[in-house]
Amino acid sequence: MTERDAPRVTVLGLGRMGTAIARAFLAAGYRTTVWNRTGAKADVLTAEGAVPADDVTAAVEAGPLLIVPLLDPGAIRQALEPAAPSLAGRTVVGLANGTPQQAGDLAAWAAGYDADYLDGAMMALPHTVATPEAFFFYSGPERAYAEHRTALEVMAIAHHVGADPAAAEIHSLAVLGTGYAALTGFLHAAALLETFGTDPETLAPAAAAWLRGMAAFLPELAGQAGSGRYGDAASTIDLNRPAVDALIALSGERGVDPALHRPLKELLDRRSADGHGDDSFAAVYELLRVR
Amino acid sequence: MTERDAPRVTVLGLGRMGTAIARAFLAAGYRTTVWNRTGAKADVLTAEGAVPADDVTAAVEAGPLLIVPLLDPGAIRQALEPAAPSLAGRTVVGLANGTPQQAGDLAAWAAGYDADYLDGAMMALPHTVATPEAFFFYSGPERAYAEHRTALEVMAIAHHVGADPAAAEIHSLAVLGTGYAALTGFLHAAALLETFGTDPETLAPAAAAWLRGMAAFLPELAGQAGSGRYGDAASTIDLNRPAVDALIALSGERGVDPALHRPLKELLDRRSADGHGDDSFAAVYELLRVR
Repeated sequence: MTERDAPRVTVLGLGRMGTAIARAFLAAGYRTTVWNRTGAKADVLTAEGAVPADDVTAAVEAGPLLIVPLLDPGAIRQALEPAAPSLAGRTVVGLANGTPQQAGDLAAWAAGYDADYLDGAMMALPHTVATPEAFFFYSGPERAYAEHRTALEVMAIAHHVGADPAAAEIHSLAVLGTGYAALTGFLHAAALLETFGTDPETLAPAAAAWLRGMAAFLPELAGQAGSGRYGDAASTIDLNRPAVDALIALSGERGVDPALHRPLKELLDRRSADGHGDDSFAAVYELLRVR
Repeated sequence: MTERDAPRVTVLGLGRMGTAIARAFLAAGYRTTVWNRTGAKADVLTAEGAVPADDVTAAVEAGPLLIVPLLDPGAIRQALEPAAPSLAGRTVVGLANGTPQQAGDLAAWAAGYDADYLDGAMMALPHTVATPEAFFFYSGPERAYAEHRTALEVMAIAHHVGADPAAAEIHSLAVLGTGYAALTGFLHAAALLETFGTDPETLAPAAAAWLRGMAAFLPELAGQAGSGRYGDAASTIDLNRPAVDALIALSGERGVDPALHRPLKELLDRRSADGHGDDSFAAVYELLRVR
């Protein structure tokens, strides 16, 4: 592949994620134009084969696909604003850490300049970019996604989750929430065991093994929640209730805040009181929708 | 190895876990004596090579090591009571799903008959017994654990976590708590996304991938919590706060109960207000000990 034939991409914003992303494109043989508000970070990548842009307009005009890994959605618009007249016909991929509303606002702004906007939510860390561990959710026009999918897959496994620009952030929040709950659960467990003299590092491998088991169990749990079929369960509401009760009681005795586990206790208690004690643990799902 | 030389083990209680455990010992070449309150389950294993015991006393007297995988700690004592005079000098491994207090009671009861008691907490499902996915926590006399460790490792990876008989149940509750939080987090995420038309089965693979990433992150998180060093963080309190806020706000808007995530929000808000916004996410650990 000659440089002339190489696919083109522009990366605007060279923080830790942006730098990792630009390197992934270079490694994949893309003609990679880079720009950053301050020049030094672009110099490092230029030494590795990236093409530095003199200004944002040059960066935008260097190709059909603009990847913008800036954490703040406001910063994405601010960075692109001087080059807005050049956006027409191009695809902007915003990789901010924003809210669903902010994603919608960016899409509307880009549409005002006849650009396609794909909102991306990065489920990755800088060191997992371009590895099988990283995945990005995307939302926005299906056509723009299909056109650029090969390039998007350079950064991470790509999941298009809807045309509504807010969909990627919504999916990201949901998945992040699963992770936040797990991490908070672990920190609670570590605080509890530290009162018995077991340090967090000693607990970590066993907790990690158990979490990997829970990850493997999610498809089964999801199948039950999705179908509403909770019968013939090995792990029932009433089998798990005493463990959650014991965990809360022990936490209280040891002076560790049991607040994290109270919502689950309440859900299990309600299911049991409603006559669903022999249903699968997943049956608490039915109570999460409050209206 | 002749049958005469084969190590001996007795499995009392042949539910789903007991049956899987007896099979694991048979596969490992143990002379495996089995007993169950009702006979039919023992017959299946006898056909596979196990030795049926005529009564509990015969089962107890068949060897030095008694594995008792009965869910209810009361059932363990009830099953062994008729053979109590024969327990002296043997090791009883109770694998109930009990509280730390119940484990201590069983140990005291066994001590009254000059038996060693090891309390075991099974972090496993029937189909993971004797696979690298399964691990059991044990507590009780170090000497009895060391003597029987080879046999215990037949069932699952074995972790001895203390001489106090309650220690295994305590460690189990802590690890279960990590898992409960993760599963509840997933069910919340699924309920939220279902309001946008994404079904739980579609969410599961991405959430599972993210949970595996969180499992890989636990050693780092534990290192920070254990050392109290939260500086130089890529993922700070103030970086994660807006995501948790957005998750709670979106849940509320969509009619999904955000109760699970409120404790984390409160912890993040307090850290930020206390001037720890640039600390690592793990710094919420410092607030979990309430006295």
